[in-house]
Amino acid sequence: MNILNNALSSIVPPDKDIHAKALDRLANQARPAGSLGMLEPLSARLASIKGQMDPRFEKKIIVTCAGDHGIVDEGISLFPQEVTAQMVYNFVNGGASISVLARHAGARVRVADLGVNADFESSLPIFHKKVAKGTRNFAKEPAMTREQAIQSIEAGVDIVNILVREDGLDMLGTGDMGIGNTTPSSAIIAAFSGVSVNKLTGRGTGIGDETLTHKIKVIEKALALLNPDPGDALDVLSKVGGFEIGGLAGLVIGAAANGIPVVCDGLISTAGALIACELAPAAKEFLFVSHKSVEAGHAYMHERLGLSPILDLGLRLGEGTGAALAMEILDASTRVLAEIKTFEEVGIQNAGK
Amino acid sequence: MNILNNALSSIVPPDKDIHAKALDRLANQARPAGSLGMLEPLSARLASIKGQMDPRFEKKIIVTCAGDHGIVDEGISLFPQEVTAQMVYNFVNGGASISVLARHAGARVRVADLGVNADFESSLPIFHKKVAKGTRNFAKEPAMTREQAIQSIEAGVDIVNILVREDGLDMLGTGDMGIGNTTPSSAIIAAFSGVSVNKLTGRGTGIGDETLTHKIKVIEKALALLNPDPGDALDVLSKVGGFEIGGLAGLVIGAAANGIPVVCDGLISTAGALIACELAPAAKEFLFVSHKSVEAGHAYMHERLGLSPILDLGLRLGEGTGAALAMEILDASTRVLAEIKTFEEVGIQNAGK
Repeated sequence: MNILNNALSSIVPPDKDIHAKALDRLANQARPAGSLGMLEPLSARLASIKGQMDPRFEKKIIVTCAGDHGIVDEGISLFPQEVTAQMVYNFVNGGASISVLARHAGARVRVADLGVNADFESSLPIFHKKVAKGTRNFAKEPAMTREQAIQSIEAGVDIVNILVREDGLDMLGTGDMGIGNTTPSSAIIAAFSGVSVNKLTGRGTGIGDETLTHKIKVIEKALALLNPDPGDALDVLSKVGGFEIGGLAGLVIGAAANGIPVVCDGLISTAGALIACELAPAAKEFLFVSHKSVEAGHAYMHERLGLSPILDLGLRLGEGTGAALAMEILDASTRVLAEIKTFEEVGIQNAGK
Repeated sequence: MNILNNALSSIVPPDKDIHAKALDRLANQARPAGSLGMLEPLSARLASIKGQMDPRFEKKIIVTCAGDHGIVDEGISLFPQEVTAQMVYNFVNGGASISVLARHAGARVRVADLGVNADFESSLPIFHKKVAKGTRNFAKEPAMTREQAIQSIEAGVDIVNILVREDGLDMLGTGDMGIGNTTPSSAIIAAFSGVSVNKLTGRGTGIGDETLTHKIKVIEKALALLNPDPGDALDVLSKVGGFEIGGLAGLVIGAAANGIPVVCDGLISTAGALIACELAPAAKEFLFVSHKSVEAGHAYMHERLGLSPILDLGLRLGEGTGAALAMEILDASTRVLAEIKTFEEVGIQNAGK
């Protein structure tokens, strides 16, 4: 647990003075106070994280964590497990959805194998962090051991450390790939919140009514069988989680430990962020939630995190696509703070004061 | 009415074949069908407007229309009328909110004076289209004559014609500046929809409860006094509108006549778009509504237009700021259509079919 403990103990909160100074500048810009809505608090948070009134993020990387899930044996997904590995190659080749949207946002994509049920050549340009070839079927037994849960989180932390050291990463995005992974994600928010599973479970890649009903029952039974302890995030992750979800939690902890903002994507990435913030509540100050997906459980995750999603575009794709789109809005918010002139600077009387 | 009639008669609907072809490609991309939500129909619309499967918009311009309002005599705004002219200079100097957000979106800003109560030097690099120095106080008499209403719309059409001819404009954004202009905008949607004024009226730049109550009464009385005909958009514009709102209507009609997409901003821009689409329902096919502002009447305008806003960031600024931000999402949507590979292209079986 050395990597994880080191990360947890090295989180330094964002600069409160810069935050206050940013809010003050925003309130005095030549426009009605508060008129740029959500962009204002976002820009103040980014400034305080970067410790600068003119924060620029020029080394944006989205890390898409991939893993497979034993729970697919229960028939909860539309696509076969092989697609997880196939999509890893699609990411690497640059033709996937996240490849396209990251490019548009001026971000790079890096892929991490946390637990795909396939053997990748060691030359494949991904982070090779496989914990095991897919989790166990948590309808019958815990998805992984507690040691594996820690290993998956530490892999995420390690990836951030490497990217900061070698690439100068200054804004991280999180994304996921894993056939079946909305099922553990809904199970995780159910375990933490106690909200009934049917309110937290959606159609994933597009399952029909019958499969949805079945998926809900599978999660309910698993929670009753394994009884994950909501006060122990490692217990939740190991019993009903996934390796890529552990990796995603590690990304959030690693970003916080390195003092950089982390933009999380949809249901699965946010499940990882939840695990991270249960282990390290201080990580939340570095976390931005990119969008509200159509997956039912997502809003409950945001509520638990106490964070408002930036976009609501009806996305339900994952991979980091929402994170990439939100990065464009976050970038815009930094320009708002730094470049819009104040009433004083342009010589107009501020009637709003 | 030559300019207006020419524009109205030259609107050619977007390419239906390209639209169908785009939807087909989107449905076969290597991701769950529909998983990119709103980006999918947006990209298909943009492709059909441009008549290309790989539409790129590289000459984006936001036209911010400014005008003053006699209705400010009723004490419905927080800021004095002088601020309209002062902000025109701020736009030209590049330090205003729209200057900053347009720059981020890769768009240029052009300012148009439709009716500011000030004399601008003819050398000021704006479109000089002043109809009059502010509207009349529509609490007492029509805001403008029918001829002035037409003149303001034709000014907007003319601006688009010039920008297409001289700058190769291929995506237009609309924005407004005019102290007091949420009042005519709420009056316009009230006149068209018949919904009660208190549901359609907001705080503008930030008025308190007492002024809000007063603002609602002013609008109610004006509508009762002038009785604008909801079946006659020119009657509505002339009785309770504004010169910049007429200009904004002209921008939408001009964009449609030139076959280019137009992204409209907040309450005031959308009031202009409403006028445009009442005069030329075919213009709606070229119109994109950028965001849902916190102004109460905005959602009713979107409902009447039958269009869904792209963003919901709590904006209430105007100037074209929401249009600039939405342009980044629209640009992203075009990359989605053109660059995400299909299942066939990457050799993955589409289980969703």
